[in-house]
This record gives sequence, structure tokens and C-alpha cells, in this order.
Amino acid sequence: MGRAGTGRARAVRAGDEEKGKMTVEYVHGYSARETRRLSDQADTLAALLHEGTAYPAGSRVLEVGCGVGAQTVHLVANSPGARITAVDVDVDSLERARARVADRHPGARVEWHRADLYDLPFPNGSFDHLFVCFVLEHLPEPERALRRLRRLLRPGGTATVIEGDHGSVVFHPDSPHARAVIDCQVRLQAAAGGDALIGRRLQPLLTAAGYGDVAVRPRTVYADRTLPETVDGFVRDTFIPLFEGVGDEAVLRGLATEEDWRRGIVDLYRTAEDGGTFHYTFFKATAVNPPLRTAR
Amino acid sequence: MGRAGTGRARAVRAGDEEKGKMTVEYVHGYSARETRRLSDQADTLAALLHEGTAYPAGSRVLEVGCGVGAQTVHLVANSPGARITAVDVDVDSLERARARVADRHPGARVEWHRADLYDLPFPNGSFDHLFVCFVLEHLPEPERALRRLRRLLRPGGTATVIEGDHGSVVFHPDSPHARAVIDCQVRLQAAAGGDALIGRRLQPLLTAAGYGDVAVRPRTVYADRTLPETVDGFVRDTFIPLFEGVGDEAVLRGLATEEDWRRGIVDLYRTAEDGGTFHYTFFKATAVNPPLRTAR
Repeated sequence: MGRAGTGRARAVRAGDEEKGKMTVEYVHGYSARETRRLSDQADTLAALLHEGTAYPAGSRVLEVGCGVGAQTVHLVANSPGARITAVDVDVDSLERARARVADRHPGARVEWHRADLYDLPFPNGSFDHLFVCFVLEHLPEPERALRRLRRLLRPGGTATVIEGDHGSVVFHPDSPHARAVIDCQVRLQAAAGGDALIGRRLQPLLTAAGYGDVAVRPRTVYADRTLPETVDGFVRDTFIPLFEGVGDEAVLRGLATEEDWRRGIVDLYRTAEDGGTFHYTFFKATAVNPPLRTAR
Repeated sequence: MGRAGTGRARAVRAGDEEKGKMTVEYVHGYSARETRRLSDQADTLAALLHEGTAYPAGSRVLEVGCGVGAQTVHLVANSPGARITAVDVDVDSLERARARVADRHPGARVEWHRADLYDLPFPNGSFDHLFVCFVLEHLPEPERALRRLRRLLRPGGTATVIEGDHGSVVFHPDSPHARAVIDCQVRLQAAAGGDALIGRRLQPLLTAAGYGDVAVRPRTVYADRTLPETVDGFVRDTFIPLFEGVGDEAVLRGLATEEDWRRGIVDLYRTAEDGGTFHYTFFKATAVNPPLRTAR
């Protein structure tokens, strides 16, 4: 979701046409602070997002755009017997992901590959399951990506795709400045070729890419003072920093004045105080690469 | 939610300062078509909204603003042994509610009272449980209403409050015209003294009104072509008509041109077609009237 996934996204996309743009914009996504934040987010959200995702022992699972391994550690935890292959185009990210998995799950066997999303070094039908989380939102051609990835699945293999949608944000106290900050992020992501509102599109995207049995379900995060861990872990430590991080760029591009931006961030933090509330929706899709007789 | 609750809301509010305004705006909410629509909506949403709400046999339950009984029938179904008292200020609504309950649950015992929300004919502490659904959104002073209603609960009695939030709407294909239509509804409701974005405020409202143990959880409706019953029952038959119904007033008040409104409605219906998606969040709160030693 937004900057949380940008590390991975840049990595995935470094091989495509958008390379220059993404590298400039998101290179600071690899700072130590960012890595820590991605990890915090993954831990807070893992139970929500990974619930129901467990792969049988021996099954071949491909995670595309693993980035620094924020989701990989949960794949390993929930599917200890699966043969997980994690791919990213960025060497540094892969190294961090490998270290993270080794740290949390010593002995876990994950195959790491440095490769581009559109040019993965696997024969068609190599995998039983595909896992894609916070990656499509950054791609100029998400349908094309899903179509390519589908070929790597055996007929009857499954895909799990998770994306956020910044248009789903609801908070109190309401604030036009806070809403403007979120809108800036959406526009910056669009300018970089992505779509921060992609969660709502998962069903048509997967269908258009040739998948069958598409089932999308929302997974939402609600926070108020009666849920202090969610307020801290999600609103304060994950969601708002995601926007704080792009303030300089928003101002530089003339999308906001410094004063308006500052006020928007202040107002966002008010939603994490007593009397404040916050609600965000992720969309989780499962789908199947159609069996041979109906495969395209 | 929006017009769906306006029948009830008008009834509840007929005794307060806003009477004239509401009566003019919402009187057609009592047409046969509207009544049928409210019923369809209640059936589609009942499982979602009433899940987890069941009262023990013999417990005294107050439903405020029962309107035409759209929720009452589900209270009766889920709590067959409870002693339900349903209140509305509108005689016609009460009559319809009574007929509906008699039709669906012959023999069910519900006490019906015509009364104003702010002047209910019950001694303090008369009830064990309070149920309020799609009512607060129409009140100029929801906190005051909740405070008054709390006095009718015995110490330790519970309140269940359900409201929608039009700011939570997410749909595909996105459309500025469709979003403008929803915004019109929000502004009309605000002009009438209500708040179509009240769902997000339930926790602070209940807390400010003196309730304890406040717990708010989102209940969301997601629809796409793979969920045809939700598309029909919720998006086509409930949600979009809720906006269609206020088109004349929106145009009359200069909030939209006829052409823009028409286009917005057309675009909303596109979200119910193949490739379209729709997501809406309700907020359901439970809370407790504090036991005597801590009651205010």
C-alpha cells in the first residue's frame, strides 16, 4: 500500500520503461528506517492479510516482488512445508529479505531470485500458487503483469493478490487538509504510473487477465482509542508515515503548499488521538488459472 | 443509511425543531415503493447488521425510531423471547411496522408506542437493551439523543447502534459524476441537520454521551459480478435508489444540474454491471450504560 510497497515496486519495475522515474522517486524507500517501518506494518497487518492463506507441504509457491521480505516471513510461517520462491529485481532488497527470513525462521528454505516481473526465469506452469501483495498498485500495466504471471502457474493453480485502496480511507475528525494529503499521494502514485486506488479493481483485472473463480473480499482495519495497538501499529506507525514520506515531493511538484501539507499531517495524527477514528480497506483476491480444457 | 432511514428519522424528529424541513423533504419516503425498498434493504443487510445481536428471553429491549419495522422483524426473529418495545413518532409508520411484524412473525409480542425520541413515556432504567439503527444520522444532536436514551437503560444495560457512512463508498469504474451524486446526498442530509458520515463518529459520540465499554466494528458490503445477489439486493435495489430519490431536490437546490445528476446515476449503475465493483462500510457499536457506582 503506497510507500509501504514502493520498495518492492521499484525493484519489480526496475527493468521496465518506468525505471528512471521510479528510481529517483523511491530510492530512499530503502533506508533502514523504511525497512523497519515496512516490517512493523507487515507484523501489524499480517494476521489480517494472510488469514486463510496457507499452502500445502510440497507445493510450489511464487512470491513476486518480495522486496525486503515483509510478507515472505509470514508466508514461511503459515506454510512451513511449502517450497517458496521469492523474486525481486533489487539485489539489496533480496539480501535484506533473505536475512529477515533467516533471522525469524532459521532453517526455512526459500529460493531467492533476482529477476524482472515481466521476464521471470521460470518455465510456464512452474508453480502451484502465486502470491502478489502491494505490487500491482505500482505497475503501469497490472493486467499485463497478471497475464504473464498466470502462465507461470500450472493449470488449476491459484493466485492470491492483495492491494489497498486509498479511496477507502475514512477518519474522524474529518479534515479537508488531511484528505488533500491522501489525494496528493494518490496523484503522485498515478504520476509514477501506478494506482493507489487499485484495490477496487482486482476482480475486473484478474478476470481480464484470464483467471477464473475470482473471489475478492475486503479486509478492513478500524482503529479508535479502544483499540490502542491498532492505533499505534497501523495509524501512527504505518499509515500516516506513508504520507509523511512523500511531503517533500508533493511540495516540490506543487501539489501542496508546505503549510497545507503540514496541517494535513497534523490533522491525520489527530485521528489517532482520543476521540479520533480511522478505517481503511484492503482487498484480497483469490483466483485460479483455468484448467487446461478451458485455459486461454 | 440515507433515505433508507429517513422514514424513521422524520418520524423520530417530527417533535423537534427541524420538523417542517424534514416533513417536506422526506414525506414521499412513505410511498409503497419506498416501503418495499426499505424491506428489501433490510433483508439483504439483516444478516450482516444483526449478526451477533440477540437478546435473552425476558429481557426488555427498546427499539427507537422503528419506522416501518424494517429492523424490528429481525429483532423479533433473532430474539424471540425478548420483550421488544418499538417506538416511532409517526402513526402510519407504526401501523405498517405492526402489520409487517404480524405478517412475518404471527404471534410475536411487540409493544408499539407513538412517541418522540426526546420525550419517551418510560421511567428511567426501564430497559435492559437499546437498539438504534439508521436514526442518529438524521439528528441534529445525536449526542444529546444518546444521552437521553441512556437514562432509559438500567445500569449495566447495553446499547447497540448501527449507522452507515457515505464517505466509505468505493466503486469501480470510478466517476467524478457518481461521486458528486453521493456528495449531494451528504450535503442535503447536512442541510436537514443530519450527518451521512456519522458512522465514523460512533465511538466518540457514545463515549461523550456517558456510555462505557464502547466497541465499534465495521461491517462492510462488497459486490461484484461474482456476487450477483449482493449486486442486485444492495447496489441496484438499495444503494443507488437511495440517491435517485433525492435527484429532484438536489437539482432544485442547485447542488447539481439535471444533466450531471443523470450522468452520475448512470455511472453508479455501471458499478453494478460486469466489471464493476462496489464497497460500503457500516459501523456497528455496542456500549454499556455504566453500573451505578460509576454512572454519571
